[in-house]
Amino acid sequence: MHDVIVVGAGYAGLCAARRLRTAGLDILVLEASNRVGGRTHTSHVAGNWAIDLGGQWIAPTHTHFTALANTYGATTFTSHEQGDNLLLTNTSRHRYTGQLPPLPPHITALLAAALWKLDRLTTRTLTTTQAQHLDSTTVATWLRRRLPTPHARRIAETVLGGELSVDVASVSMLALITAIRSTGGIRGGIEAETTGHLFTHGADGPAQSIAAELGDAIRLNTPVTSIHHTKDDVLVDGLRAKRVIVTIPPPLAGRIHYDPPMPAARDQLTQRMPMGSALKTFAVYDTPFWRTDGLSGLTLDLDGPTTFDVTRPKGPGLLCTLITGRAAQQMTELTTEERKAKTIRSLIRGYGPHAAHPTDWREKNWTEDPYCRGGYSAYYPPGVLTSIGPALRTPIGRIHWAGSETATQWAGYIEGAIRSGERAADEALHTEPKFKKREIPD
Amino acid sequence: MHDVIVVGAGYAGLCAARRLRTAGLDILVLEASNRVGGRTHTSHVAGNWAIDLGGQWIAPTHTHFTALANTYGATTFTSHEQGDNLLLTNTSRHRYTGQLPPLPPHITALLAAALWKLDRLTTRTLTTTQAQHLDSTTVATWLRRRLPTPHARRIAETVLGGELSVDVASVSMLALITAIRSTGGIRGGIEAETTGHLFTHGADGPAQSIAAELGDAIRLNTPVTSIHHTKDDVLVDGLRAKRVIVTIPPPLAGRIHYDPPMPAARDQLTQRMPMGSALKTFAVYDTPFWRTDGLSGLTLDLDGPTTFDVTRPKGPGLLCTLITGRAAQQMTELTTEERKAKTIRSLIRGYGPHAAHPTDWREKNWTEDPYCRGGYSAYYPPGVLTSIGPALRTPIGRIHWAGSETATQWAGYIEGAIRSGERAADEALHTEPKFKKREIPD
Repeated sequence: MHDVIVVGAGYAGLCAARRLRTAGLDILVLEASNRVGGRTHTSHVAGNWAIDLGGQWIAPTHTHFTALANTYGATTFTSHEQGDNLLLTNTSRHRYTGQLPPLPPHITALLAAALWKLDRLTTRTLTTTQAQHLDSTTVATWLRRRLPTPHARRIAETVLGGELSVDVASVSMLALITAIRSTGGIRGGIEAETTGHLFTHGADGPAQSIAAELGDAIRLNTPVTSIHHTKDDVLVDGLRAKRVIVTIPPPLAGRIHYDPPMPAARDQLTQRMPMGSALKTFAVYDTPFWRTDGLSGLTLDLDGPTTFDVTRPKGPGLLCTLITGRAAQQMTELTTEERKAKTIRSLIRGYGPHAAHPTDWREKNWTEDPYCRGGYSAYYPPGVLTSIGPALRTPIGRIHWAGSETATQWAGYIEGAIRSGERAADEALHTEPKFKKREIPD
Repeated sequence: MHDVIVVGAGYAGLCAARRLRTAGLDILVLEASNRVGGRTHTSHVAGNWAIDLGGQWIAPTHTHFTALANTYGATTFTSHEQGDNLLLTNTSRHRYTGQLPPLPPHITALLAAALWKLDRLTTRTLTTTQAQHLDSTTVATWLRRRLPTPHARRIAETVLGGELSVDVASVSMLALITAIRSTGGIRGGIEAETTGHLFTHGADGPAQSIAAELGDAIRLNTPVTSIHHTKDDVLVDGLRAKRVIVTIPPPLAGRIHYDPPMPAARDQLTQRMPMGSALKTFAVYDTPFWRTDGLSGLTLDLDGPTTFDVTRPKGPGLLCTLITGRAAQQMTELTTEERKAKTIRSLIRGYGPHAAHPTDWREKNWTEDPYCRGGYSAYYPPGVLTSIGPALRTPIGRIHWAGSETATQWAGYIEGAIRSGERAADEALHTEPKFKKREIPD
C-alpha cells in the first residue's frame, strides 16, 4: 500500500513525486516507456553533444523550471541569434532582421492591426457571449477576416500553427487567446521567446536528476492500463494507494480503463482534446557554417519547416527543424529517407549547397511515440473550452490530474508541466486526511 | 483459431458476422455490454410496449435496413403526424403546420436563401481549396454569416445541432455537408425524415434476430482491451483469428491497446473524432392526449428538448424528447429527478398541465453508457476531414474498420452501420487468400 501512485515520469509526474516525497509520503511512479522525461528527450550526437528531441527552451519567466535547473546545477546558454533571419518559399528567399519578415508596408500594417486586436482580446475580460463566440470560431476564420491579403495570412498561419503544433484550421480562437494568456500575454510570450535559453547538456537534465533521487520509486516499462477507485483507495493495475495522480496527456489518460467509469464530462473531454502533430529533426555539420554568411540560422519557410540554430558552445554546427500540424502528418506518410531529403532541400534553399551534406541527421516524430502520440501538447478544437473544459483539472474522487495541459500558466510548456505536478501534489496532500499532518518544509 | 473476430455486436458487427457466416466462415463476435444492438436499444414500458432508447427510424431509402427488416419480419408503422407542430421558447408558444416554424417573411426568406446555398454546396463538386476553406470553418461561423437575424439563427442552430447531436460551434462546415450528402442531399434527407417509420416492437428487433441466428458465436460482457497483430494473424485478448473487424465508435476503438501500435494517422484520427452528446427521455401517458388538442406531438423548443410522438398503434401515449450537444452535457450534471422535472416543464409548456403527470418516465444518457460514451455518432471537428479523414476506413494489415461512422451513405444512421458491416465483411473476404474460394450465395 503506497500513499500516492503517480502515472507518468515526465516533468509533471517527477515534480509531483518529488514534492510528495519531500512531505514524507511513500510514492511510486509508473512510467510506460523505457526512460523518464516525457515530452523532453535529450539524445546525443558524435562527441557526446546534446540534442533535444522534445521540449528544449527555458525563459526567465519560467520560474519553477529555473528553480529546478538551479537546484540541480543544469547550465544553460543563449542560442546564437546574430545575423539575418530568412523568409523562404519554394521560389523565394529573403533576408531580414528583427521579428517581422520583410513585407510591403500595407501588409505590415495589417499584421500590426491584427496583433493589436489579438492583444486586446488577451488582456480584456471577456463576457460569456464573447467567449462563446470566440470558442465557436477557428483561428483560420479569424485570420481570414483580419488579414485579407493571402501572403500576410500565410505568414500568420505558419507562425501560429508552429506555436500551437496544429493547423489554425483546427483550433478554437478562444483556445489561442487562452494559450497566449497562459504565457503572460503577447508581450510576455515574445519576451520569453527572445530571452529563451537552451540547456548545455539537454533539457531533460533536471528530470534525470529527480529520477536519480527517486531511485527505485520509479518503475520504467510499466504502461498503466486500469485504475479501479473506491471511496477508500485506488488500485492501479493491481497496485494499491490512497491516491493516484495521472500526468499523461488527456487523450492517453482517456485510454486508461477506469472502474467505475469516468463521469460523462471527463470522458467526453478526453475524447475532445487531441494531441498536436510535431516532427523535429537535427542536421549536424562540422561547423555552424551559416554564421560566416551572416545568417542567424532562424528560417521561416512557408513551404517547409521552421529552422533554428541550436549549436552548443564549442560544439558542431546544429540546425534544428520543426514541422507541425498537417505538414507533420503528411511527412509521417513518407519514408525516413524521403523525410530527410525533403528537410535537407529546405536547408539548402536557406543555407546553400553546404547544407546538403550533414555529418549526421536525426529525427523524432512525436505522433509515432506510442506513449505521447503527438506533440507538443493537446489542443482545444472549437466548442470544447466553454462547454466541458473545466473537467480537465477537476479531481474525480481519489484521482488527480496533472500534465502540462492542466497548467493555468505556461500550459504546453515544460514550466506548465512542473507547475501542474506541484499543484496536483498539493491537491493530494490537502484533501487526504491521512496526509494531513505532512507539511512541505520550504 | 477463428476465421474472423468481430468487435462489437451493434448492427455493424452483427451484419458483418452474418455475411461472413453466410460465406461459410468461422466467426466470433465479442461484445462489451450485456446486450446486442449497440446504439439501438429497445426497452419496454407497462403493457410490454416498446420504446427505443437509441436509434429508432427507418426510411424507404434505407434499403439495406429495409431488406433486413423484411427478412426478419419486423413490422413498422407511420408515426402520428396529424395536427399542429409547436415552436416553443421559455416565454412563447406558437402552433404551426408544415416544416418551417412561423416566422416573419424576411426571416423565412433568409432561411430559404441559406438553405439554397447549403443545397448548392452539397450538390456541387468542391475544389480542394473550397473543401479546405469549409473544413476550417465551424457551422456556427457559417450560420452567423448567412443568418444575421438572431431568431432565424437560433432555429437553424437548434435544428442542425439536433441533427448532428453536437453544437454547431464544434463541427466543421465540410462535415455538415458530408453528412447531408451521405443522406442523399437535403431533399433526400428531408424525404427520409418525412417518410420515416418506427418499429412496432423496437428498432433492435432485427439485431436480436441476427443474434439468435449467430447463437453462441456471440460472447456478451467481453470488452476487448488489446489486439496483437502480425503478418499471419491477430490475437484479440488472446483469441486467435485470421482477421478482425472493429466496429465500435472511433474514439473507443482508439482506446484498444494495439501491438504493434497504430500508425500515426489512424491514432491521431481516433483522438480527433469525439462522440456527440445525446440524452433521450420518454414520458408515458394513459392516452396521447395532445392529439385531442389538435397537436402532432412534434415540438421544437429553443430553450429545451425536441419532442415527438412515438405512441405505438393502440398503445399508451408516448412522448419522446431528445436533448443534444451542450444541453445534454449540462443535463448530465443534474440528478435524475432534476432532469425529469426540467424535461416535464418543457412538456407542460407545450402540452399543458396534463403533461405534468406521466405514468412512467424513462431516460437514456448515451454519454454515460460506458461502451458508447456518447451518441448518436462521432463527429468531425474542423480540420480533420481534409487532413487524416481517410484513415477512418483504411484497413491496417489484418484489422478492418466498420461502424456507422465509416459508411459513405447514411453515416451515423442504423442504415450506415449495416452497410459498413457488410462492406468490412467483403473487405475481409476479398483480401484474405485463405477465404478466397468463399462466395456469398446471393
